[in-house]
Amino acid sequence: MNSDLSSQQVKDIGEQGLLERLQRFCPPEIIGDDAAVLETAPGQSLVVTTDVLVDGVHFSNLTTSPEDAGWRAAAANLSDLAAMGASPLGITVGLGLPGELRVSWVERLYQGMTECLQKYNTPIVGGDIVRSPITTLAITAFGQVNPNQIIRRSAAVVGDAIVVTGVHGASRAGLELLLHPELGQNLKDAERKALILAHQRPQPRLDILPILWKILTPNSCTDAINRVSNSRSLIAGMDSSDGLADAIIQICRASGVSAVLECRQIPVPKTFNHWLPAEQALEYSLYGGEDFELVLCLPQEPALALVQHLGEGAAIVGKITAGSTVLLHDEQKKFPDQVLSLSQGFQHFKSQKL
Amino acid sequence: MNSDLSSQQVKDIGEQGLLERLQRFCPPEIIGDDAAVLETAPGQSLVVTTDVLVDGVHFSNLTTSPEDAGWRAAAANLSDLAAMGASPLGITVGLGLPGELRVSWVERLYQGMTECLQKYNTPIVGGDIVRSPITTLAITAFGQVNPNQIIRRSAAVVGDAIVVTGVHGASRAGLELLLHPELGQNLKDAERKALILAHQRPQPRLDILPILWKILTPNSCTDAINRVSNSRSLIAGMDSSDGLADAIIQICRASGVSAVLECRQIPVPKTFNHWLPAEQALEYSLYGGEDFELVLCLPQEPALALVQHLGEGAAIVGKITAGSTVLLHDEQKKFPDQVLSLSQGFQHFKSQKL
Repeated sequence: MNSDLSSQQVKDIGEQGLLERLQRFCPPEIIGDDAAVLETAPGQSLVVTTDVLVDGVHFSNLTTSPEDAGWRAAAANLSDLAAMGASPLGITVGLGLPGELRVSWVERLYQGMTECLQKYNTPIVGGDIVRSPITTLAITAFGQVNPNQIIRRSAAVVGDAIVVTGVHGASRAGLELLLHPELGQNLKDAERKALILAHQRPQPRLDILPILWKILTPNSCTDAINRVSNSRSLIAGMDSSDGLADAIIQICRASGVSAVLECRQIPVPKTFNHWLPAEQALEYSLYGGEDFELVLCLPQEPALALVQHLGEGAAIVGKITAGSTVLLHDEQKKFPDQVLSLSQGFQHFKSQKL
Repeated sequence: MNSDLSSQQVKDIGEQGLLERLQRFCPPEIIGDDAAVLETAPGQSLVVTTDVLVDGVHFSNLTTSPEDAGWRAAAANLSDLAAMGASPLGITVGLGLPGELRVSWVERLYQGMTECLQKYNTPIVGGDIVRSPITTLAITAFGQVNPNQIIRRSAAVVGDAIVVTGVHGASRAGLELLLHPELGQNLKDAERKALILAHQRPQPRLDILPILWKILTPNSCTDAINRVSNSRSLIAGMDSSDGLADAIIQICRASGVSAVLECRQIPVPKTFNHWLPAEQALEYSLYGGEDFELVLCLPQEPALALVQHLGEGAAIVGKITAGSTVLLHDEQKKFPDQVLSLSQGFQHFKSQKL
């Protein structure tokens, strides 16, 4: 009986049947009209982001279970909200599915999505299921933000400290271990698993926001007060979904500034120190991508307060300077100074935000 | 030079290049962050709807130019907002594109989308472009609505009049004329063009909403006051994107009521009277779909006021009764009474809303 069910295909139950199966993942009071209705808090701005994921391009049964594909898709969108300073309100899920796809695959995809979403109290509020020759997943996430707390790429100013949360390079290392298990032969089981988990189950850093707002309240920080009173944003930033180098370059471009990064300050997984050559570790951390951490530019005082609060969970990796380049500096002189660019280093095939 | 440009493929300029080309269709102040930020009016609820459209399933170069595909996709989503009583705030567009697709096709798609959106002051606020073996278009539209003015399917009550806007069957007739031009040989050129235009450029009925709210203001209608004071919705309804029969059946299901429709009252294009046999005209009007009109259930008094206001632009086609069936009645006795169901009549392959 169970095996019968697990081999059931989308065409066996049709879009309507699949719809009924998936309704258990959605709040019942929201479903069943032409569109979903959500309450927003007074005075909040709406934040919207969208991602399209295609089978064989953005996920693959070779390295990704349907649960992990679902988790990662949800996490990527929640991370975009976090990067704007926004709290999630809900997501919609558009699915294009071949008739031959197993129903259980779709249910497992939704299982993974909702596991991630539930952690951040975010409902699936609607969607659309259509037939398509190729499995396609289109997610739109929306959230709300206090207009004074919007985190934009364009708000970095000379003198800002650059803070990164978490570690960088773990997701890329996890992907390599999935593709080439032999690379992990010198790793402990727990180390290997931790890196793979970083790839399969990235955590959007919505947890950083309340800490950030607490640190940036006017009473706690004079620099921040000055910034607000000059009607500038409190903070600039984005997420590191496309890599740490990409994030810093994008912020500098949007803000019309330069940055200097200090090699040694970039937090990498501890495992890297005894596993990877220094250059490889640097490559993964700068260009690996999909760590979904936050890269924030803010005045020194609150930057220090944030890092103090987060302990090993964040680091100041450099500073914003005048100009239009991103310079990587190595205090230890292992590497010569180099200007980072998007065409350099690893660039994975990725989606383009409009 | 022009022909060079028009033969350019997506892979020639890449996702980044395409992105730059398409930015002119979007408001510049919104683009360039991890997500778009939009202002919502105080006290308004957020309304969200999403559609996925796949080449060969939902649009085809045989019957639809890229401009029309874009217009229709935008119109369908705006119609979902209108059906909820919501004013549009913006849409996001997710695109999956084969490398071989012409850049000019994508630009023409955006041209058609923005032509429709501009009519309703709605910006494209973001999107995502990815490579895919099949052209796929995922649109999410969001709008806002006064919580007291949400139009739900589930709010119809016994005694309500059923009002439809516009005419039904025109879009289906237009599609038939595109597929089988010989069917139009007895039509005047203007008649044929009008039906084809109804298919290619459907108009979401956002224009109805302000008229509706004016008619339903407490001072103008005692029934409406009673309804509000009983904390019930003012009005029930949905759009007729999947056909008039479908809309009335869905409303009755969601509201736990019956309906009786009067054949003669269903407004069809005037052309039908001298062009189609009565049964064919009825089939098109009930099951044709994609007319994107509104089907509204409201007390007799405001229903009459609405129809009076709209003149030939609306009609009362029946009433809500107790029970759980939708009965089609023919005063002229040309057809026997029949119970309408979704499995009966023409059912086009359509997307399923979650």
